[in-house]
Amino acid sequence: MRAMLPLLLMLGPASVLAQSLAVSSPDGKLTFTLSDDDTPHYQVSREGRALLGDSALGLSMLEIGDMGPGYRIVKVARHHSDSQWEQPWGERHYVQDNHNELAATFANDAGQRFVLRVRVFDDGLGFRYEVPAQPHLSTVNITDERTEFRIAGSDKVTAWSIPARQWDRYEYPYRTSALEAVQSAQTPLTMKLPGGVHLSIHEAALVNYAAMTLNQRRPGVLKADLTPWGDGIKVKTAAPFMSPWRTIEVGSATDLVNSSLILNLNEPNKLGDVSWVKPGKYIGIWWAMHLGRMTWGSGPHHGATTVNAERYMDFAARYGFDGVLVEGWNQGWDGDWVKNGDKFSFTQPYPDFDIKAITAYGAGKGVKLIGHHETGGHVSNYEAQLDDAMALYQRLGVSQVKTGYVADGGEIDRRDAKGIRRHEWHDGQFMVNHYQKVVTEAAKYHIAINSHEPIKDTGLRRTYPNWISREGARGQEYNAWGTPPNSPEHTVMLPFTRLLAGPMDFTPGIFDLAPTDLKDGNRVQTTLAKQLALYVTIYSPIQMAADLPENYQKHLDAFQFIRDVPTDWEESKALAGAVGDYLVMARKARGGKDWYLGAITDEQARVLPVKLDFLDSGTRYEAQIYRDGAKADWQSNPYDYVIEKKTVSRSDTLALKLATSGGAAIRFKALEQ
Amino acid sequence: MRAMLPLLLMLGPASVLAQSLAVSSPDGKLTFTLSDDDTPHYQVSREGRALLGDSALGLSMLEIGDMGPGYRIVKVARHHSDSQWEQPWGERHYVQDNHNELAATFANDAGQRFVLRVRVFDDGLGFRYEVPAQPHLSTVNITDERTEFRIAGSDKVTAWSIPARQWDRYEYPYRTSALEAVQSAQTPLTMKLPGGVHLSIHEAALVNYAAMTLNQRRPGVLKADLTPWGDGIKVKTAAPFMSPWRTIEVGSATDLVNSSLILNLNEPNKLGDVSWVKPGKYIGIWWAMHLGRMTWGSGPHHGATTVNAERYMDFAARYGFDGVLVEGWNQGWDGDWVKNGDKFSFTQPYPDFDIKAITAYGAGKGVKLIGHHETGGHVSNYEAQLDDAMALYQRLGVSQVKTGYVADGGEIDRRDAKGIRRHEWHDGQFMVNHYQKVVTEAAKYHIAINSHEPIKDTGLRRTYPNWISREGARGQEYNAWGTPPNSPEHTVMLPFTRLLAGPMDFTPGIFDLAPTDLKDGNRVQTTLAKQLALYVTIYSPIQMAADLPENYQKHLDAFQFIRDVPTDWEESKALAGAVGDYLVMARKARGGKDWYLGAITDEQARVLPVKLDFLDSGTRYEAQIYRDGAKADWQSNPYDYVIEKKTVSRSDTLALKLATSGGAAIRFKALEQ
Repeated sequence: MRAMLPLLLMLGPASVLAQSLAVSSPDGKLTFTLSDDDTPHYQVSREGRALLGDSALGLSMLEIGDMGPGYRIVKVARHHSDSQWEQPWGERHYVQDNHNELAATFANDAGQRFVLRVRVFDDGLGFRYEVPAQPHLSTVNITDERTEFRIAGSDKVTAWSIPARQWDRYEYPYRTSALEAVQSAQTPLTMKLPGGVHLSIHEAALVNYAAMTLNQRRPGVLKADLTPWGDGIKVKTAAPFMSPWRTIEVGSATDLVNSSLILNLNEPNKLGDVSWVKPGKYIGIWWAMHLGRMTWGSGPHHGATTVNAERYMDFAARYGFDGVLVEGWNQGWDGDWVKNGDKFSFTQPYPDFDIKAITAYGAGKGVKLIGHHETGGHVSNYEAQLDDAMALYQRLGVSQVKTGYVADGGEIDRRDAKGIRRHEWHDGQFMVNHYQKVVTEAAKYHIAINSHEPIKDTGLRRTYPNWISREGARGQEYNAWGTPPNSPEHTVMLPFTRLLAGPMDFTPGIFDLAPTDLKDGNRVQTTLAKQLALYVTIYSPIQMAADLPENYQKHLDAFQFIRDVPTDWEESKALAGAVGDYLVMARKARGGKDWYLGAITDEQARVLPVKLDFLDSGTRYEAQIYRDGAKADWQSNPYDYVIEKKTVSRSDTLALKLATSGGAAIRFKALEQ
Repeated sequence: MRAMLPLLLMLGPASVLAQSLAVSSPDGKLTFTLSDDDTPHYQVSREGRALLGDSALGLSMLEIGDMGPGYRIVKVARHHSDSQWEQPWGERHYVQDNHNELAATFANDAGQRFVLRVRVFDDGLGFRYEVPAQPHLSTVNITDERTEFRIAGSDKVTAWSIPARQWDRYEYPYRTSALEAVQSAQTPLTMKLPGGVHLSIHEAALVNYAAMTLNQRRPGVLKADLTPWGDGIKVKTAAPFMSPWRTIEVGSATDLVNSSLILNLNEPNKLGDVSWVKPGKYIGIWWAMHLGRMTWGSGPHHGATTVNAERYMDFAARYGFDGVLVEGWNQGWDGDWVKNGDKFSFTQPYPDFDIKAITAYGAGKGVKLIGHHETGGHVSNYEAQLDDAMALYQRLGVSQVKTGYVADGGEIDRRDAKGIRRHEWHDGQFMVNHYQKVVTEAAKYHIAINSHEPIKDTGLRRTYPNWISREGARGQEYNAWGTPPNSPEHTVMLPFTRLLAGPMDFTPGIFDLAPTDLKDGNRVQTTLAKQLALYVTIYSPIQMAADLPENYQKHLDAFQFIRDVPTDWEESKALAGAVGDYLVMARKARGGKDWYLGAITDEQARVLPVKLDFLDSGTRYEAQIYRDGAKADWQSNPYDYVIEKKTVSRSDTLALKLATSGGAAIRFKALEQ
């Protein structure tokens, strides 16, 4: 790692002249300018063009009111970094971290101070507040964060957003609109400015703080809107503390996808050896319940039975899957389990689920049981059993758990120290800390966590590499019962929005696209070929083959792609795409020679020319192409797929013909010379 | 007043059987059903049809958590009331109060309890929480109100709304949308259900509590979303306390307009003799500043000068206006008066404004100076000077003051007890109390208050009849500089939304509809005849003739209607209308024999047949009709107006032909027999 000595500039106390400091990306194109004129604020420009105009900075606290107005820059330090670090698993094996940093200390006449640390990369930037120990702040109750993002030329900006703090948390279709029509938004919030440059606002390293949502109270000015505790306070902490990084990715649509900004702003791995965290693929007793053929609760159609589990394990072993998820195995699912989620046991199986026999059976076949902890949003009940539950799983050889927080009224339920029931948001500070606690507790037992109804991903998988995946958007299940189900553009929205934050356990791979069980005309609104492509376009170290085993048996030829596709990558590259329209993604298998490609489109059929110059030179490949047939159409003819093989090299181009809501999935199998 | 003895039903402690109690309107059609099954909730139906489905009730407090789940009905009391009361001024002289009341006491096993009091009228209902003194509640910090309004068949409901807690407070165009597209809303929120029944949700008697906005986190379920203090708490109080009434008006579009629900749920007059509160009409040094011809601040174009004020008083005296508003009279308007609003003086005039001479001049002519207190949102500065400011005005014979709270960032600025600057919402509890304090303080000095950038009206003019008007919606000024200006439908939206809450100082009567001063093509988007009609369709005890005097002198024939129209009424009646489309309003002068009618339409020209059967029998009238001419059109020909006279009686019908964004204003002058 090359590092330059920090450049310190002492300016003495509360200098009265307004100052303006700039820090740019290594390639010089992206510039963050920080000023202390009247109140701290910043601007962002790219190659001379304003992206963000004067945007306020600051915090408000019970203890001392506003940190911001009247504060002056009193100290400046600069750093440069150009290094590479290695992921134990991920979209890529090695990550480049090349940035310029500015750390400016602001202080007021009373001696209160904070540091704004800024890092600017070629593909984006991040800044955070660092509040050192100082008088009056032995407790800090943050009532408001004053951070703004003032988007230049906002009246001509397009945004893709989901609303903040609604009943279904992050599970909303992304809405395309004028930016100025967005009242509130979750992050990532992705935008396109005139001329084509894209921005995506998010945060990195959300630890012991409330999640930041955005509120556009004034046209073009997005203000940080922290999710409150039930008592209204936003963040309860003490100095010294640091806020998460507020991040802005900048570039083309594919630049956003290819950025490692979020990971680079996270702390390195704290868990040491994580060789016990294993990427892989799984199936599960799960979709049958969403179809209504099996139940989570006990009864004649109970899904989680010994017989069913062993049958699924047979299938997994036969076709090379690492694990079987079983939902509904534990006491508490009968009746209204959302309302009565505080009755869940995380250690007592139902009588018809012999967990010891099942895990032993699987062990004999090299297949693991994947654990499941659905809380119904009743967190105190879960925390009280957490240790015992993880210890049980460890004893039984379970090394991966899916957690759930389906909550009544969209609210989390907890008991405070006096036993009074309190309501919290999924993305308030209480739950941010809870989700992280589950991950660090599980790590003690060498268990990896896949959080559903989670806190949004902010890159903490770098620091805790057992946090392998999460939901945090509308997933496949909405196709069973969503009103409406996911539209053709939904999975083409996700890579440019939700997936910028991190991996998603979307659970792709449904082959029976219009099961007769479903009501209201619900169905999976894609072709079958697109379901295959999702294994490449959606990144997750764990991917489910979501359908019932019998449906795969009907299409073993197409199923081969799912069997082959890895979930851990040497490199990943978005080749072409436009938000909500189409995406072409290429990835190279980690520890292998093969490449994989996924291409998907929205409701519009497309022909996408793809240059194969990402392939390694000096290598020929057998391209195993799974694509829409000539007459494929998601509504009338979704099963028209073609599987063909071609010999190709990096000098070739393929013209991928995608049907409406269609896709193409390709394995480039390296040929021996 | 006829009253029946209350019917008490003692049910003993925490009865374990779920109970359901109903209370209906006097005509039996509207029914409120209250239940304690699992958690307190209610439903509303009309003639057997569900209007609101199971809607939760309750409060959450720091001290004891939720008041709601697990609480049972332990006591029931019923009342009936059929009475009439008199207003000192208003839309009508006498108000009918005919309702059935249910008061249900809820208690839990720990002895905590609250009363839900419900009153059902033929045209709507209201309910409120009453929390009596009890253990643990010597302080009460409300963190959430759990009240819901679950609209039946919500997927087919139309709503007219403005968003909650945005930069411009209530100053947004009303948006017509599917109800389910409404994320957040201010009240009144007006809706139309399939079949035509309208609902409007609001509140009455908002005292020492946070304003209720609505949030639709789940489709069809509007939840009370109280506006928080800066520190996040919603309401700071102590038991015993009462919430405001949560109100639902029910009926046709004109039923909503004709309802006295809000006033009936307010406490009677507490001020005693209020003969010093005088309805009237005024002009002002105001529009010239919005046009940019004069300035609020000092300088060569300062509007508030002795010469200008006396000139306006001449005009007022000549044409029968009671008062002249002068803005910009006091020290503090120079520079950024919003940011520096804590520099405003409310006692020191500018040197070129000889307030003593001006008020004496006016007294000699029977014209009063109308006072102006613009705070720039800096409330502590205003409160510190309030007494002196009101005393000064009283000494000078000023009996009416317009207040203002234009605030930087949409936030109110106050200093707490330690001098720390805090930010509050215009509609949080702090400001609810501030606005009321200004009114009660002013009452001591026999001064009436017209609040701009106010708290929404919840009927407190009944309790404090010196609270004569307020803004709280987009007014005329937006036509000068609004982006965009008010559209043709705006003033046709207001009567069915904003004006259900109470009077508005809209300031109608612009005669120069497209002043050349205005930028961006801004103009008043109505015909001239519609400006006259607004004096009848918008109720306010004080109405401004908003334009520059010279523009009235150019159209003295049309100006005659403004000179004639009263602002205090014996009776008011909406005859016909549809939200945002058109309205026909009739009013009878208080203490007189004349009737007045105003008809307005949106961008669509209309012919409205109007039966004159509201006129008194046995009387003939000269109908002095001010209407759009045959070729009138708001865009191309707004000055085409016709004034004609006809003799009519109650058996006649008029066909009113309104142009695009047009209107008709009629004085029915009673003829001597």
